[in-house]
Amino acid sequence: MDGAPPPTSPTGLSAYVAVSQLLGLTLLATTGAWLGRYRGGVAWHSPLQFNAHPLCMVLGMVFLQGDALLVYRVFRHEAKRSTKALHALLHGLALVIALVGIIAVFESHRTKGIPNMYSLHSWCGMAAFVLYLLQWLLGCGFFLFPGASFSVRGQYKPQHIFFGITLFILSITSCLLGITEMLLLKISDSYSHFVPEGILANTLGVLLVAFGLVVCYVLTREEWKRPPLAEEMALSMDFKTLTEGESPSGGSQ
Amino acid sequence: MDGAPPPTSPTGLSAYVAVSQLLGLTLLATTGAWLGRYRGGVAWHSPLQFNAHPLCMVLGMVFLQGDALLVYRVFRHEAKRSTKALHALLHGLALVIALVGIIAVFESHRTKGIPNMYSLHSWCGMAAFVLYLLQWLLGCGFFLFPGASFSVRGQYKPQHIFFGITLFILSITSCLLGITEMLLLKISDSYSHFVPEGILANTLGVLLVAFGLVVCYVLTREEWKRPPLAEEMALSMDFKTLTEGESPSGGSQ
Repeated sequence: MDGAPPPTSPTGLSAYVAVSQLLGLTLLATTGAWLGRYRGGVAWHSPLQFNAHPLCMVLGMVFLQGDALLVYRVFRHEAKRSTKALHALLHGLALVIALVGIIAVFESHRTKGIPNMYSLHSWCGMAAFVLYLLQWLLGCGFFLFPGASFSVRGQYKPQHIFFGITLFILSITSCLLGITEMLLLKISDSYSHFVPEGILANTLGVLLVAFGLVVCYVLTREEWKRPPLAEEMALSMDFKTLTEGESPSGGSQ
Repeated sequence: MDGAPPPTSPTGLSAYVAVSQLLGLTLLATTGAWLGRYRGGVAWHSPLQFNAHPLCMVLGMVFLQGDALLVYRVFRHEAKRSTKALHALLHGLALVIALVGIIAVFESHRTKGIPNMYSLHSWCGMAAFVLYLLQWLLGCGFFLFPGASFSVRGQYKPQHIFFGITLFILSITSCLLGITEMLLLKISDSYSHFVPEGILANTLGVLLVAFGLVVCYVLTREEWKRPPLAEEMALSMDFKTLTEGESPSGGSQ
């Protein structure tokens, strides 16, 4: 390593990130169109309170969660500390919006006398939310606040990454289950006749899958991983020497 | 590299593989229990033909597909050619069983006059099946039959792995959508009262997620990847030299 790498992004990364953002905005617009055109819109203190649920979950648990996962690829030449803070902030914002969405469905169910937590959608969705909150707390504890040693951080990091992507996929799956449940509860008689509402909501499902696919592709592509900055490289070598007794000049894995 | 590595598996891998198989067998048993106890069982030329669909899809698109993905981790010290053949064979078997499951639902719908391909489950499921067939054909073409150069194989391999895991996840998601659809069509009145059938089918959904989680964890854990055998190492070095002009003694990535 003779000097800092030039601050350019690898070929294709910017295009994939742009496509992900286009898909993300399109799926938000499609959710809005579905709720506005066919479900009467969204309002808090009204029978339309339920509709805040899908809107908040798609915005928080899909779009913002996906963007929070992408920050290490997008801001690849910024200081790690700033990128980490943005990563935690976006996930935190996603959690708050998802909490509003969960309150909306529980309050709406209470008003209408509908039982809670009986469906596979609710089981998967609640598991995704609770584990996402836990992952966020663990992430802040290990990586954002001082205290955890380099060794502990290094051991936890692969788990944090694996469960981060897993929870993002589980969140999207929960949204698809929610779409199916909503369609079969609201338009069970006409759904099989290819009515426009059914096709629009199915399309939202396809867009959710496409968004998840593009985000996961960007995250898992080896050559698009964030390169460590010069000072991080030095720190990493010192850490390897301390923990593994390896020479700082030894090759990385 | 002074000699062949001793034929032992890394710590933990065997335990995770055992858990995956236990989960796989449990989810097959749970599918059988649901169909047998609450849906009248499975038969081909009868009104029960539909029930062959969930059974075949869980067996083919989840259990066998998952096991096909695991063979490179389980048979890590066997010759690559044999492991590759088993990988292709298991995926091929999964495809045949899934095709039987798809025929079952189309024939059942035809008999009962129910439209096809209107639901999000059918869109996701059909996409998963068609792309899985395409992935299998491409995999055979690139890796199993002679013809493709080392360079082309090397370029396609990361895509094959990414889309392999993606299609496995999409298959599980389609199963969860199918469970939700079946419950809301068959027991819509009692589902919200926590009836045993609803809880059993939801549990099947949770088992499917758990199976997917364990399989993906095994697949993505860096230190559990299949180590190349001595002769493959030599071949890989020659390939690197040919394609990148790199010295055979240079470190691998």
